[in-house]
Amino acid sequence: MGDSVKRLVVLGSTGSIGQQTLDIVRALPHRFHVVGLAAGENIGLLAEQVKEFNPEFVYYVTVSNEDKKAQTRLTNYEFLSLEDIACHPQADIVVIATSGKAGLSPTLAAVKAGKSVALANKESLVMAGEIITSEAKISGAQILPIDSEHSAIWQCLSGEVQKAAQVVLTASGGPFRDYSLTQLKEVTVEQALKHPSWQMGRKVTIDSATLMNKGLEVIEAHWLFNMPFDNIRVLIHPQSIIHSMVEFIDGSVKAQLSYPDMRLPIQYALSHPDRLPNPQLPRINWSNINSLTFEQPDLDRFPCLGLAIEAGKKGGTYPAVLCAADEVAVELFLSRRIRFVDIAGFVERTLEQHQTIAHPTIEEIIAADAWSRDRIFKLVNGDNL
Amino acid sequence: MGDSVKRLVVLGSTGSIGQQTLDIVRALPHRFHVVGLAAGENIGLLAEQVKEFNPEFVYYVTVSNEDKKAQTRLTNYEFLSLEDIACHPQADIVVIATSGKAGLSPTLAAVKAGKSVALANKESLVMAGEIITSEAKISGAQILPIDSEHSAIWQCLSGEVQKAAQVVLTASGGPFRDYSLTQLKEVTVEQALKHPSWQMGRKVTIDSATLMNKGLEVIEAHWLFNMPFDNIRVLIHPQSIIHSMVEFIDGSVKAQLSYPDMRLPIQYALSHPDRLPNPQLPRINWSNINSLTFEQPDLDRFPCLGLAIEAGKKGGTYPAVLCAADEVAVELFLSRRIRFVDIAGFVERTLEQHQTIAHPTIEEIIAADAWSRDRIFKLVNGDNL
Repeated sequence: MGDSVKRLVVLGSTGSIGQQTLDIVRALPHRFHVVGLAAGENIGLLAEQVKEFNPEFVYYVTVSNEDKKAQTRLTNYEFLSLEDIACHPQADIVVIATSGKAGLSPTLAAVKAGKSVALANKESLVMAGEIITSEAKISGAQILPIDSEHSAIWQCLSGEVQKAAQVVLTASGGPFRDYSLTQLKEVTVEQALKHPSWQMGRKVTIDSATLMNKGLEVIEAHWLFNMPFDNIRVLIHPQSIIHSMVEFIDGSVKAQLSYPDMRLPIQYALSHPDRLPNPQLPRINWSNINSLTFEQPDLDRFPCLGLAIEAGKKGGTYPAVLCAADEVAVELFLSRRIRFVDIAGFVERTLEQHQTIAHPTIEEIIAADAWSRDRIFKLVNGDNL
Repeated sequence: MGDSVKRLVVLGSTGSIGQQTLDIVRALPHRFHVVGLAAGENIGLLAEQVKEFNPEFVYYVTVSNEDKKAQTRLTNYEFLSLEDIACHPQADIVVIATSGKAGLSPTLAAVKAGKSVALANKESLVMAGEIITSEAKISGAQILPIDSEHSAIWQCLSGEVQKAAQVVLTASGGPFRDYSLTQLKEVTVEQALKHPSWQMGRKVTIDSATLMNKGLEVIEAHWLFNMPFDNIRVLIHPQSIIHSMVEFIDGSVKAQLSYPDMRLPIQYALSHPDRLPNPQLPRINWSNINSLTFEQPDLDRFPCLGLAIEAGKKGGTYPAVLCAADEVAVELFLSRRIRFVDIAGFVERTLEQHQTIAHPTIEEIIAADAWSRDRIFKLVNGDNL
């Protein structure tokens, strides 16, 4: 589109990624225009965003009385379903910043409509990577990754003719990188919510602490870059400066570096293939970067990483079951029903009890998700199965 | 050219870069064919190379009786001048691996002929960067950098739409990185020739130890990437794994990594925009990379870096004078006529005494080179000037 204005819809505009997406629009109003906003919670904030960005259409869920009050401020805007917003003809780029499986259906709608889909929602690719990538091939939709790791890989692949030989996903290692198994058993919710380098939502913060997040990213990378699992490596890099790397067939490696700030990958997804100057994005101060360190991940202390890679390799409905079980397990940990170390155990038992379906349909994936949520609850409750 | 065979001429085939270029041809004989070889010394080795690669034409200089004996093995091959080889219609890529100012004239001939010029010779761009880059613009010649740092920058720029905001040239820091000024005064030739990470020719090894090499690379980067000197930063990185980095206008940084092995940048220059699998090129073993460290360069202990950047900024004939004076000073150090720390001092005094010419012609550059060699000899001899 060159210098013209790109029209965005932002699904999940009140979450962490959604708000940072709007920060980019605020910083670059001559390049981006918001035509649609959608939020599943915090309708008060949505109403403020709508007032500021004046979109054409909105979506929201009202649950509380507070929400209903805010809703009165939204009556002048066209109300559309998430899926209708995701494939609206007025949208050039659809930002999917909803978390959890709520992102799956609008992602699929946007992909089928051939949109440019800026994807921050992990679950849709993890659960239905095969369907989404094959639909994208048919429609010509472009998936623009927003995750910092996948954005890094995407940036490193820019201009390269051949497929990569290997991708190296970096991981901060989370707050418990140096904890022993014994220490991990005592981890509190408050400790787990303190990520050493990234400011993120609660679910992804806990997933980062268990390394489940990295495992989900391995599955995403598999689908986004058509990369065999054996050619995806995870490397612990506590400084979170190198966001990922790509090794090419001649042995040359490219890495992408920046301070941990999600606004950069968000802006890159929106501006691609251009880059835009944005004084609000930090520049690395090379006088302060003394050492970048790397370690191998420890699958014994962080079994979620291995579980996720295994589920990804097995394919079928396993990744959907993994995702759903993890979502429930993290919720149960946050509500202090299970311990930090139990997250992996319950997810593992749920996976073990699952009968997978190869090349599942969306309906089968959604059924597997429901089965998984039900099963992990029962496992936690100690029900006889 | 896709899968077809690229025809190469290699000027300086018996030097370090020349020999490694032929290693690449040996490893990938279905992709590269040698049509011309040229060497200024070691005619015995040239004769062996000619026997192995069977080029169409050769160039050589005979100086010793030994050379004359080897010369008899070359009589079946067409003898052409360096310049004629550099712009020969049969050559797709001209590899300029000659060292010193001998590279200038063939580089200019190749560039004027619109060739793809794989350039390992630093001096030609440092001395005559303005002329070479403007001639390349006229002829459409492409300059393919072979230096590992410039290859890294080039690889990082691949696919990018905008100009870079900054380039970060990394430097190993050489064998004397941690030496005090007092220790530097005692440095022997043997110590200076032992580079911690790179295997290179004698001149460039000494230049790496003084950081003059990095200064020359700053000037090269200025011309190759049309980058203002103030946007070129030098960072000491002792492991020599990150070969350089590029910062873009959105603050994102890309780095290129590999073990220090010149065959990779040579092969990339020859295969660009493709990459080719070559089992002889090492792949990074991520289990062994624990830490990549960075330091600021110390211009007090390594004044050559500052001298070079200053000469580059001033432009005109200063860079040619810098180059020539350094070549002589290194030679005098290697022959134990001056101390390691005197290299910078004599180069500086030569620069101080030079009357520069703005936007010089090639003739004026060559005259400045000659003036510089004469002047630094006189300074070392203590002649009254």
